[in-house]
Amino acid sequence: MDINRHNFVENFSEIQTVIKECDFIAFDTELSGLTKDRLNGLFDTIDERYAKMKCNSMDFLLIQFGLSCFKKTQNENGKTSENDCCSTYDCWTYNFYIFPYKTNNSTRQKERSFLVQSSAVAFLVSHGFDFNKLFAEGINWLTIEEEKHFLESLENNFQINDDEREPKGDIDIYSNSKYPTIPSEHKDFINEALIKVNNFLRNDRQQTIHLSVSSPYQRKLLYEIFKASQYNNSLDVSTSKNFRDRHMIINKITREEKEKQRKQLITETVGFSRIIQCIVASRKPVVGHNLLLDLMHTVRQFLHPLPNTFSEFQAMIKDLFPNLFDTKFIASFEKFKEMFQNTSLEEVHNVVKKEPFKPIEVKNVNLSGDTNSNCALHQAGYDSFITGYSFAVFTDYFKSEIETFKNKLPITCIHDISHLSIDASNETPDRNHVFHVSFLSSWKTNDIIQLFSAFGQVVIAWINDTSAFVALKNVSKAVDAVKAFQQSKSSNFQVQTYAEFCASKSNGAIKRKEMQITSDNYVIDITPSKKIKSESRVESKEAETI
Amino acid sequence: MDINRHNFVENFSEIQTVIKECDFIAFDTELSGLTKDRLNGLFDTIDERYAKMKCNSMDFLLIQFGLSCFKKTQNENGKTSENDCCSTYDCWTYNFYIFPYKTNNSTRQKERSFLVQSSAVAFLVSHGFDFNKLFAEGINWLTIEEEKHFLESLENNFQINDDEREPKGDIDIYSNSKYPTIPSEHKDFINEALIKVNNFLRNDRQQTIHLSVSSPYQRKLLYEIFKASQYNNSLDVSTSKNFRDRHMIINKITREEKEKQRKQLITETVGFSRIIQCIVASRKPVVGHNLLLDLMHTVRQFLHPLPNTFSEFQAMIKDLFPNLFDTKFIASFEKFKEMFQNTSLEEVHNVVKKEPFKPIEVKNVNLSGDTNSNCALHQAGYDSFITGYSFAVFTDYFKSEIETFKNKLPITCIHDISHLSIDASNETPDRNHVFHVSFLSSWKTNDIIQLFSAFGQVVIAWINDTSAFVALKNVSKAVDAVKAFQQSKSSNFQVQTYAEFCASKSNGAIKRKEMQITSDNYVIDITPSKKIKSESRVESKEAETI
Repeated sequence: MDINRHNFVENFSEIQTVIKECDFIAFDTELSGLTKDRLNGLFDTIDERYAKMKCNSMDFLLIQFGLSCFKKTQNENGKTSENDCCSTYDCWTYNFYIFPYKTNNSTRQKERSFLVQSSAVAFLVSHGFDFNKLFAEGINWLTIEEEKHFLESLENNFQINDDEREPKGDIDIYSNSKYPTIPSEHKDFINEALIKVNNFLRNDRQQTIHLSVSSPYQRKLLYEIFKASQYNNSLDVSTSKNFRDRHMIINKITREEKEKQRKQLITETVGFSRIIQCIVASRKPVVGHNLLLDLMHTVRQFLHPLPNTFSEFQAMIKDLFPNLFDTKFIASFEKFKEMFQNTSLEEVHNVVKKEPFKPIEVKNVNLSGDTNSNCALHQAGYDSFITGYSFAVFTDYFKSEIETFKNKLPITCIHDISHLSIDASNETPDRNHVFHVSFLSSWKTNDIIQLFSAFGQVVIAWINDTSAFVALKNVSKAVDAVKAFQQSKSSNFQVQTYAEFCASKSNGAIKRKEMQITSDNYVIDITPSKKIKSESRVESKEAETI
Repeated sequence: MDINRHNFVENFSEIQTVIKECDFIAFDTELSGLTKDRLNGLFDTIDERYAKMKCNSMDFLLIQFGLSCFKKTQNENGKTSENDCCSTYDCWTYNFYIFPYKTNNSTRQKERSFLVQSSAVAFLVSHGFDFNKLFAEGINWLTIEEEKHFLESLENNFQINDDEREPKGDIDIYSNSKYPTIPSEHKDFINEALIKVNNFLRNDRQQTIHLSVSSPYQRKLLYEIFKASQYNNSLDVSTSKNFRDRHMIINKITREEKEKQRKQLITETVGFSRIIQCIVASRKPVVGHNLLLDLMHTVRQFLHPLPNTFSEFQAMIKDLFPNLFDTKFIASFEKFKEMFQNTSLEEVHNVVKKEPFKPIEVKNVNLSGDTNSNCALHQAGYDSFITGYSFAVFTDYFKSEIETFKNKLPITCIHDISHLSIDASNETPDRNHVFHVSFLSSWKTNDIIQLFSAFGQVVIAWINDTSAFVALKNVSKAVDAVKAFQQSKSSNFQVQTYAEFCASKSNGAIKRKEMQITSDNYVIDITPSKKIKSESRVESKEAETI
């Protein structure tokens, strides 16, 4: 079911209930882009990878959130059905379009700018993503901190002035310090306007009046007076958008209506963040496919700024989502190696529908007319559904053993690290056979192969035009290589052990940190040169150079 | 007429001709956003404003370009018609969708990331802008520098190896240094592949073969061999996109076909920049409405990086577009004051259709079925048309006097500067009655009014929470104010003359320049606080505080 700003409020409490009562929650996101720069990170540590993702990916926007809540079906005896053929589930899937917008009443809402990666949006459009709908109908959000400020400002606008309950009394704006000071040349206008409002409040047959104002400053003065007075309890004040004829529209309103307006405005404005807050509060198992980037965006956009270090992020995630499962990590299980050609979501979903897995039966409770969004790959609502489906099959397969996969997330494109743990510390594997090599910009892959030819086959990970990491395939040759390079002195190249390189890097860390933010050129992701391309090849583990 | 990547090549030469033969060119752009930060620039100099616009607006993308070419209609005697009732024009309007994309053959194309301002795209969608179409069908572009690199790389891919004209001959990849070194474990594969290709070339009945490759590295080797050999003249090589079954598809192709492919690829890839190059080459009068931002984006995106100073920009624009006219500037002509309620494009177009102006008659030559794009305000193609229409009316009205408006562009939201000149130097007006005031963050507008109460009414331009420019309405009080503030010493505030402030600023200029680029928070345009709002009020000249 597609959820946009027009049906969000009406569906909110159902979604809240579904989250509370389901067995597990699967989600997926679509983003306005993935990365500003190539990560070039075949020999990253987890800390480095987290820092790179934070720096390179967090200016993009999470634009669609697919939420699928799965609940095991109970039979008539109140027990969940586990007959021989298959488990059965009820599933509610919601496909949220997420985009900032200003509600009519919240002039102090944020304007947001964000990055878009051209290939990412072109890819989404080619898979049927509707950007017109996104920009016109997306649901707003606020971080926890933004929500706090918003509620404070709202408090002022909707305050009920209990000390002056009589809305029909005159107000004396000149002898009470709660009213703004009125500059002398505006006094006539203000006095006249207040008389009109007073008469209007006394006239039971009139529901609306219009007040002409000749400047935004006059309008501001009136707004401030209304807000400070008991009029605030019984008037709904807005400004006409007609550009030429500027005036304020004043309606009578009951206290109950005003309170209803207030609640609706909060739900609209805090918007999708309320859903994430519900998920956090539920403590339910949360399932995703290749979760790390999704999690980082979800936290950053709807909850808190991302911490600077991975260990702080670990603690934060553990606190927010204590029961995480990643179907990509589960599919990379050693015993499955022959079964999955790769661990893409599509492949995983295709494979778990067949032997040796047992198919499950799912009733899509809220699948109505808009099948479009729920049936297309790379629509978040469909991807969250097939993620949840795959997880349900895995839980049947592993039974209680599924817990061994908890809170472990796959990490891609690091040569010797396949996943990270949210619960435990993540040690970097032994890299004694890895070298950092600097060289002339004229060097090509073959020059590096030549340099290391005495030590057998190597894996090359280009960092840039003049440096690369090189790992020996034959680890036992590492000692020989270290010795050989200690003795060779050449002005054409420099070889450091991985440990030496890390040490020199951490000495220069502050300097590099400064460089990161002076990114005049973040807007264009430079075309991969011939060299970088070969790095990408190695990084994607499709090929290795001897 | 909507122009996208599918009909760009076929329409290109017509558009080229139309530009060459028209009398003047009107254009309009739509952008993915306007500004990252509020400019707060009521007392900017032209240089400062240019620098702010360069820093705050240039990461957004020009996504639609409306081009309207107007040509005065000739009567049967070959003279342009100037009968009593009206001038008549032929007009060709093109509405270009602009978005980066990779053509199949140009793997080295740029990936681009750019900023989007949420309110800007929401505004465009509400006026019918189709972002799905933009992302799926936008036309590519390259700057002059990018085009140079692209053509160089193409030279390699499409080189004709005239020294070996016989495409059916064997090639010896092991004894010629122009071929890549083949690692020993790939030799069997490469030899076998070359035998297959040779047989294929000798077999007149075969038009296509598929070659299986087991890694991207093997594919790369084959590509490099083909490129260096005479095979490059007669083979069209591509890679199958089927993920599981990786193979190269090799087709026979004639030299003429290859040349045609090459030309088409260049037109597609250089794309919309070719249109701008045509406009530049034409030296025709170029008309826009509020041109400055449009010009900056047009230059940056399609031609050259923007220079750092306004005077360099001036020289560049003079060189590229020597005959600029701005309908907003013309409409702000002193004598028109009573006629135009404001100088928005819509208002200008409405007014010039009535007395005392003489309506013109326009035949929209290429207005076919797709009226949508040509009839909606804020579609670039419609806005460029009504800009050109208005300019045509103005030229009838002013006759040769229209030249007095040449190369002058309006500049908005500066208190005492209404326009800038591209031809002449732009002096900053006398600001002896302007003061820079710093104060505690608790200060409000009234505190500033109080501070200056002895010197009459003031205009306040908030810079931030703790500083503002204050201008005396009564200029003659400036001397008194300078004296008074020289004597007063308070820890609550500091008052400098405008000249003192500029001097202290230019001392700190290097430091501030550094600050500009460390913009961690550029992604979110902070909600205007109460104070900033009052600045905006003053800035928009709708109201002035006493």
